[in-house]
Amino acid sequence: MMHPIYTFDKSMEMLRRAMNVIPAGIYGHLGPAEGCHIPIDAYPKYCSRAEGSYFWDIDDNRFIDYMCAYGPNILGYNDPEVEEAAARQRELGNCTTAPSPVMVDFAELMVETVASADWAFFAKNGNDVTSLAVMTARAHTHRKKIVFFKGYYHGVSPWTQKIDYPGIMEEDVMHNIYVPWNDIAALEEVFAANRGQIAAVIGQPYMHGNFADNVLPAQGFWQKVRALCDENETVLIVDDVRAGFRLDLSGSDHYFGFEADMICFCKAIANGHNVSALCGKDFLKNTISGLSYTGSYWMSAVPFAAGIACIQKLKRIGAPAILIEKGKRLADGLIAAAKKYEFDLRVTGVPSLFYLRLADDPSLMLHQRWIAECVRRGVYFTNHHNHFINAALTDADITETVEIAEEAFAALRG
Amino acid sequence: MMHPIYTFDKSMEMLRRAMNVIPAGIYGHLGPAEGCHIPIDAYPKYCSRAEGSYFWDIDDNRFIDYMCAYGPNILGYNDPEVEEAAARQRELGNCTTAPSPVMVDFAELMVETVASADWAFFAKNGNDVTSLAVMTARAHTHRKKIVFFKGYYHGVSPWTQKIDYPGIMEEDVMHNIYVPWNDIAALEEVFAANRGQIAAVIGQPYMHGNFADNVLPAQGFWQKVRALCDENETVLIVDDVRAGFRLDLSGSDHYFGFEADMICFCKAIANGHNVSALCGKDFLKNTISGLSYTGSYWMSAVPFAAGIACIQKLKRIGAPAILIEKGKRLADGLIAAAKKYEFDLRVTGVPSLFYLRLADDPSLMLHQRWIAECVRRGVYFTNHHNHFINAALTDADITETVEIAEEAFAALRG
Repeated sequence: MMHPIYTFDKSMEMLRRAMNVIPAGIYGHLGPAEGCHIPIDAYPKYCSRAEGSYFWDIDDNRFIDYMCAYGPNILGYNDPEVEEAAARQRELGNCTTAPSPVMVDFAELMVETVASADWAFFAKNGNDVTSLAVMTARAHTHRKKIVFFKGYYHGVSPWTQKIDYPGIMEEDVMHNIYVPWNDIAALEEVFAANRGQIAAVIGQPYMHGNFADNVLPAQGFWQKVRALCDENETVLIVDDVRAGFRLDLSGSDHYFGFEADMICFCKAIANGHNVSALCGKDFLKNTISGLSYTGSYWMSAVPFAAGIACIQKLKRIGAPAILIEKGKRLADGLIAAAKKYEFDLRVTGVPSLFYLRLADDPSLMLHQRWIAECVRRGVYFTNHHNHFINAALTDADITETVEIAEEAFAALRG
Repeated sequence: MMHPIYTFDKSMEMLRRAMNVIPAGIYGHLGPAEGCHIPIDAYPKYCSRAEGSYFWDIDDNRFIDYMCAYGPNILGYNDPEVEEAAARQRELGNCTTAPSPVMVDFAELMVETVASADWAFFAKNGNDVTSLAVMTARAHTHRKKIVFFKGYYHGVSPWTQKIDYPGIMEEDVMHNIYVPWNDIAALEEVFAANRGQIAAVIGQPYMHGNFADNVLPAQGFWQKVRALCDENETVLIVDDVRAGFRLDLSGSDHYFGFEADMICFCKAIANGHNVSALCGKDFLKNTISGLSYTGSYWMSAVPFAAGIACIQKLKRIGAPAILIEKGKRLADGLIAAAKKYEFDLRVTGVPSLFYLRLADDPSLMLHQRWIAECVRRGVYFTNHHNHFINAALTDADITETVEIAEEAFAALRG
């Protein structure tokens, strides 16, 4: 069966309306100005509804969704268990003057679930908790310097942006040190050259950056990072905002066989309900307790109730193994489809958040054309960002995805 | 009728559980470590349910709530119109890969509603949008310095914290300049001494800081600030996170007869649903479009639908006038109750977000005792922070509040 080619007339019309009242029309990854080179005319811009592993755009095109709202959708859109728990709490109250006891329940569940967690602090954005982790490390160590791994993304606050980005000052990033991923010798040199000055090393569990094949940690890499941090009394922060709960419910540090001092969660923590969490070790609890850090909605109860239901269901179904298995089957199918048309498709990263690259053309244009042909037939991939698997994705979805990928490869050859 | 004295045994027990798994047990204003000196044993710590102008704690005590979740509750908890709009959108989708068109509808409504808005940018925290405003001003002007009014609060990011706060570096705040509120001469001096270097002036519409009587702008103050910013090509940012929609639906700058270049909203924008907004002038639209700034939940649809319903209802009922009138009647009643027992109660700020201070004792201890006596009888006031009025507050609530205030004054004299 050949799949029909979608058009996006209503999306384009809505985007024109949006451009009048919203800077860039849509910001972030989907915006015309964004960095992942999503061609404006090949993609749906507005979603009318979502269910399970699908969303429909306002032109009524259906997509098998491999972006999952850029991560939050881990169980499927509108998961009944999560939504029922949220609805029950909503009737009692959400954003109230004093927090609900469900906040304590959720913190207890996080501590029980996450291997490196002695406590949990909740906020709203991934950026809130990566920023809090860095502030806590600086307060604890009375040092300023932070080591990043090149290719990182830790949010949008000035401290984590680049010096040449608009609105960023030299002072925002002057204590940042950048080392190549998987390069222990470089990290050792940095520690030697900055003895007693490094507050924290912050890293994603593996390198899942944009515009490059994703790279797992080399054998023993994290263990050596951990040892260097210990030797230098430097705080080790794992940013699990993107990968969290898709590798290991105990934390992606646990998946790779080490323990962070602090670990940041967001996205998949409550299946799209708005909450993030910083978890950490007891030795940092006094320090973080003394920081000035809060927000208007941070103790809202509905996201906590949703988070509890989400994590309990992830545990019950053994989600990471399922998601990795689904991702593997999809990757195998896609690679076979590419071979059939003599293309070399590279699939990297952990399969539950796989990264795609068509390696036949270094300019990336061929890759972008292939992705666009997939999207126009109902498979929502993106160009130069990792993808996300959700638990509602069916075997039939995977089969249909591979069929569409084949048709897209055929279109490139045609 | 004498009101019974509440006890908080279950709250205290829950707080002990919380201390094991959450830094400080509760962070922010309600935490044991927070700055407004809420006595831990005189306050409910956990909310079991909320409705209209009330919340109930887990000891089943009912409170007439004058904190309104520190602002978000403007229409009353669980407002039926807001919740119905949210429920309708929830069935379609919330946090999805592409945004819903309701995002565009909400931006159009904000631009139509807010006098100084040519565009709207949505995020999650008040802190997200105050930070974005400062980054935008720096990017637009290619300058670094920011002028603050002493007593300000603009969130928790390092740029807006104090040099002596834990986790804050000199570099975070070295371009901050602090001038006294209502002091045009001081502001003129600062501009003269930093010619061509000031990116922005940021201010709340009036001084509603903690631990001090709130102070309205002096006649002509904002107009002179506006003129100085114009002369110096400095961006004028109004932080309306706390006061927004309780003074004037067109923005608190409009209430005081001037126009900001950018204005920050959060709290009351969606009656507790999680969204914030930065609005601004056309001349900044290109600059902000080029910034790298987004978050995982920022385009979630349910808060947009709730925000539309909230603002439409606020407009229909003429909310600011109603809230100010309720606040005035309450203030008059409280002041009369104080007089009866020969106390001097000062009520300052705009009545819809009034600040209380018992002026008979400079140590503040008497004030704290009076507030605690009110709380223990079912009126939720706080010690050294402004309060908030919501539209569900009834005449009977105000009458009961004044009765309880009298009993509390009597207890101080007893």
